[in-house]
Amino acid sequence: MVPNHDASVQNGLDMSNARKQASTDVTNVKNFIYNGKQEWQRKERLVEIMSKDPAFDKRGREWMTRTEKYSRGLRMLNRMYDLEQSLGWRREDTAVATGLLDEALPISLHVTAFEPVFLLQASPELLNRYAALIANRGIFGCYMQTELGHGSNVASLETTATYIPETKEFEIHSPTLTSSKWWIGALGKTATHGVVQAKLILPGGEDMGPHLFFIQLRSLETHKLLPGITVGDIGPKAFSAYAATDNGFARFDHVRIPKEHMLSKFAQVADDGKYVKPPHAKISYGGMLYIRSHMVTNAGWITAKAAVISIRYATVRRQGTKGPDGLEKQVISYPSLHSRLLPILSRAYVFIGMGRTLSRAFQIMAQRLSSGDTSLLAELHAVTSGLKVLCTTASVQDMESARRSMGGHGYSAFNGIGRVYGDMVASVTYEGENFVLDQQAVRAALKAFHNLFGDDGKSRPSSSTIQNLPPSTYYLRLLANTPSSEPPILQDASNSSASSWNDPETLILLLEWRAALLVHELAQTVRDPDATIYQRVSKGTTEAFVGRRVGEMIGALRGNSELKKNDVVVLSKLYLLFLQTTVESALADFLSFSLLRIQNPSRVGASRDPTRGLRMAIARNCLELLPEAIGLTDALGFSDWELDSALGVYDGKVYQALWDKAQMEPLNEKEVPDAYEESIRPMLLRGQRMAQKLDRTKL
Amino acid sequence: MVPNHDASVQNGLDMSNARKQASTDVTNVKNFIYNGKQEWQRKERLVEIMSKDPAFDKRGREWMTRTEKYSRGLRMLNRMYDLEQSLGWRREDTAVATGLLDEALPISLHVTAFEPVFLLQASPELLNRYAALIANRGIFGCYMQTELGHGSNVASLETTATYIPETKEFEIHSPTLTSSKWWIGALGKTATHGVVQAKLILPGGEDMGPHLFFIQLRSLETHKLLPGITVGDIGPKAFSAYAATDNGFARFDHVRIPKEHMLSKFAQVADDGKYVKPPHAKISYGGMLYIRSHMVTNAGWITAKAAVISIRYATVRRQGTKGPDGLEKQVISYPSLHSRLLPILSRAYVFIGMGRTLSRAFQIMAQRLSSGDTSLLAELHAVTSGLKVLCTTASVQDMESARRSMGGHGYSAFNGIGRVYGDMVASVTYEGENFVLDQQAVRAALKAFHNLFGDDGKSRPSSSTIQNLPPSTYYLRLLANTPSSEPPILQDASNSSASSWNDPETLILLLEWRAALLVHELAQTVRDPDATIYQRVSKGTTEAFVGRRVGEMIGALRGNSELKKNDVVVLSKLYLLFLQTTVESALADFLSFSLLRIQNPSRVGASRDPTRGLRMAIARNCLELLPEAIGLTDALGFSDWELDSALGVYDGKVYQALWDKAQMEPLNEKEVPDAYEESIRPMLLRGQRMAQKLDRTKL
Repeated sequence: MVPNHDASVQNGLDMSNARKQASTDVTNVKNFIYNGKQEWQRKERLVEIMSKDPAFDKRGREWMTRTEKYSRGLRMLNRMYDLEQSLGWRREDTAVATGLLDEALPISLHVTAFEPVFLLQASPELLNRYAALIANRGIFGCYMQTELGHGSNVASLETTATYIPETKEFEIHSPTLTSSKWWIGALGKTATHGVVQAKLILPGGEDMGPHLFFIQLRSLETHKLLPGITVGDIGPKAFSAYAATDNGFARFDHVRIPKEHMLSKFAQVADDGKYVKPPHAKISYGGMLYIRSHMVTNAGWITAKAAVISIRYATVRRQGTKGPDGLEKQVISYPSLHSRLLPILSRAYVFIGMGRTLSRAFQIMAQRLSSGDTSLLAELHAVTSGLKVLCTTASVQDMESARRSMGGHGYSAFNGIGRVYGDMVASVTYEGENFVLDQQAVRAALKAFHNLFGDDGKSRPSSSTIQNLPPSTYYLRLLANTPSSEPPILQDASNSSASSWNDPETLILLLEWRAALLVHELAQTVRDPDATIYQRVSKGTTEAFVGRRVGEMIGALRGNSELKKNDVVVLSKLYLLFLQTTVESALADFLSFSLLRIQNPSRVGASRDPTRGLRMAIARNCLELLPEAIGLTDALGFSDWELDSALGVYDGKVYQALWDKAQMEPLNEKEVPDAYEESIRPMLLRGQRMAQKLDRTKL
Repeated sequence: MVPNHDASVQNGLDMSNARKQASTDVTNVKNFIYNGKQEWQRKERLVEIMSKDPAFDKRGREWMTRTEKYSRGLRMLNRMYDLEQSLGWRREDTAVATGLLDEALPISLHVTAFEPVFLLQASPELLNRYAALIANRGIFGCYMQTELGHGSNVASLETTATYIPETKEFEIHSPTLTSSKWWIGALGKTATHGVVQAKLILPGGEDMGPHLFFIQLRSLETHKLLPGITVGDIGPKAFSAYAATDNGFARFDHVRIPKEHMLSKFAQVADDGKYVKPPHAKISYGGMLYIRSHMVTNAGWITAKAAVISIRYATVRRQGTKGPDGLEKQVISYPSLHSRLLPILSRAYVFIGMGRTLSRAFQIMAQRLSSGDTSLLAELHAVTSGLKVLCTTASVQDMESARRSMGGHGYSAFNGIGRVYGDMVASVTYEGENFVLDQQAVRAALKAFHNLFGDDGKSRPSSSTIQNLPPSTYYLRLLANTPSSEPPILQDASNSSASSWNDPETLILLLEWRAALLVHELAQTVRDPDATIYQRVSKGTTEAFVGRRVGEMIGALRGNSELKKNDVVVLSKLYLLFLQTTVESALADFLSFSLLRIQNPSRVGASRDPTRGLRMAIARNCLELLPEAIGLTDALGFSDWELDSALGVYDGKVYQALWDKAQMEPLNEKEVPDAYEESIRPMLLRGQRMAQKLDRTKL
């Protein structure tokens, strides 16, 4: 039967009309979001090569077993490095190409965890011997920290590294079941080497706490495990996600490694077993900070995918009452839908920008760290803790909102978001569980508060102290001048046309006031905290930081010579939407701290809802951005091959794409499934017999 | 290597200590939550039989392909009906046994969608011929409503059923690609028959809108599709969930069915083609209401599973600073954790109770409907719309919170929650997409408001009208007596010991006031609504309804002779926690409507946070419930076989369970994976060559 193509015609028309409506220059905005024409062209070139290479064909992956997905992943990696060599890719090319593989692969642990830690902390001798091998994947590494019974609390790790002065060796050992290294990416089947975190035990028996050691796991000749090492894959993940990564376990049975294999740039053991202290106790957090700053960028691009797919589908999907043209309405025209999708788009743009800012800050810190200067560590630690929580939480929530916005078809694997969600949702619990990180962010904020205002919170800091506040606690300046300073209370808050709701600086100040008052409140109640205060303070202080950065992004737009005036106007509105919806999501805080005034609080029901002004301003901003939605999603520059989504296809022909994909389902290979003879037929026959018996009884 | 068992000893100790701490009588509470000893014993007996039957063995399912999962599902069904027959199960036994299969299976569409619609609407002749066959699965049915291009808006379905008076037949036809039936559970490979929703076209060409028709799809001899019918499976779902259900597509090419196959109890076509009107236009919603009331119960039990697993794991998981006993703290002792988990437990208890209330209401309505009395339809429609949204949204959110509360191991498929989440999350978009249902709930609320207070919202209803308000809009009575009535404003809201925060009636009244004021606000602004008002009103009015029911549940506890006094005290606290956290989740509403007063609103930062009182009351209630957590989860009566979770095992020995499960991973069958020769080795060798070249260059 030849399917009738009427739907595709209308789908295509809806999409091309939406493209015509958009007023931004897609090329300019694309160059802007990719941080320059060159970066965009790099990606475009790589997509061109890879999307045509059969090794990177995505068809059929929905039906693969875990083992097949793992094998496919390594096939892709091998092919990619083949291309790297034959086409002479630079390091940046390979990084972009790796991202294009669109799977969680073991290599990411080598590149983002193993290699940076090794480079940062290995001795010159070790670097000399292994750095080139690592950079070229002549050995494949993993980073063994987490244990079966031990996660965030690194101090309680059980694996031991006992120094044996007689042979100048360390003995790595797993004394208990719970000391088994667990969750280690690439360990299960792939890695040949690894960095293991273990308690350093000195010859006298003194426990020096966790340190890092470089260890070979498998033979480079046969890939078999070395003696004393038990390693395997820990099994499938929730949502069948991360299937191509072999997260593994490892147990060590008195395994000896040479003394030189301790990563000893900042802490060493002398031949005789004497411990030489590191200059900064938290030096080893450097690697984790790098991973976290990378996670912000990643959250941005992942959110971007969800925005593109859901906005495209909502543009061509029609449902509801019919208009004069006989067509149902495009669902994106419903406020309940576009008010969910456009803020997601705004977060994608903001997080991509934030990730860039953070990477720059990390590079500066890493340079200073390598020369022993740890001054930026605390600031970046505070910032990345809160940001990691904020961005990962928001991005998984946005992905799921975007998926649900697609209604029934959002539950098809072919929508492409569910798969990405499954991979991404791990980020809320790895690299610092979000609730634990909240507490770190809060601790940093409280420390800054008391540094400024003393133990009793009542001291007055000097104005130079205030002027030198770092970005992470810049909002605390607001508490310094009380009572003279006054927050920007919106006296006519319920009025949506109040220009304040459309003024970024007002919204940013509100976010900063909220952060300041939350920290102030916590400082007063810290001995008897309620159960959610840490989360609220972490979110509040991080949103103040992000809000200020978004203000800078808006400022920078005007100075960007690549963007046309109209592009600047539209992007400013998108950033404004980010600020507006950030404030909206925390209305309880703003109201309880009197930052939003209720005009006539003594009479219930008499006053107008003071939150209505903001909500209407959001609704209006969304309506203004609506015709720009497809332009702004196109500017994110995803090809159909990258999105791999039947609902997010560039041409909008979603129903044909769904139909075509369904025909590939293996269950459809046979008209009568194998289960028929085995189960269905016996079940039907039994039922027919029973029904007949009933009928006879009736007679 | 023999794993060291120290962790299991401590795990077991922690769990048995927690059991000793609990003061409730697990048997009594179990009988209470199962609605009587008899129901609990029924389930216990079935678990005993099924958990030992190899057909229902769950081991290895994590690694099955979709086709294997589908075949396994049908094997389980066939075996279950075998047992039903041989052991003489009653209908209730089979219903419970089906739930125990712990998979989304095609049979649920037969039982919850196809059969009820058929029984409610088929003519006596059709009933006589097929009812017994359907009841015994002598034929297997599906319910074909949704189309590729058409979901909630049934009015726009494209499939046609044209009456042919000459042969007294209907011709079922799919005129377009988008008219393909889509997402139809059990259609893909299993169903032999179905009910299809199609536009009834009369001989004159008149379109009478959607009606239902009974149609045979496959031969009962060969299971092959009948002529003119194209059917297949629509492919995998997001999160690899619902894998054992063959959601399918169907296209009809001028397929003729006898006139008698129209489900004609409420609407008929005479032989000559004249249409005979149904007595009530919305009569066919009956089936959907049944499904929705069932979904509330299901949400309760699913939430219960998540609560049991996460609370058990948090009881034995230790992490953080070490106490004097040398052990890290049990993570459930952290407020940031138990304040997330105990409210989930409270929602499980409440939703299970709500589902029971609703099922009773549905049975009464169905009885009245069958005799043509439609008076209860509107009320139940309004109630189930809002409740379906509330319960499905909450249960999937709670499952995900519970999963994340388990940190890293929460991302292992072996935790058992992710799998259930994947199946359950479909419920937010099926059987009425939640955002669409919100609007229906709001429409019902607005209609009730204007019925009472007139078009201008200012009329005064009579006191008898007020007294006869149905439960769904009972809160509207509060608006009738203004200004004399006053909401229960907590003058000392920031004081946590204010007894009001622990008084259910105060909290319920607050929820009702919020609902009333939200509807009042919406009535004033309905011409220019903001984008989220429908959601807030739907949630607000439904929570007022649920709150009142929870008040009744607390009242009923005292009259329950099966419960001991202490059980009543503990369960009352659990219900109280539900009310407290329901209020907490909507603080922005309470603050903006002045239902929570800010004491000194004119001076920013001077007043205490007015939300702190409630938050501290929640924290205190959680602390009091904490020692009861394991008792209350045990009372939910899940066996290890049912939970199939390494982290939720009854004996608490989670690390051993995780270790044992990981050993089953197919990737672990070979020490060196197949990918080694194919991909890993070439990649390593290439890297080694490149590194060597670099080294030579250096020299």
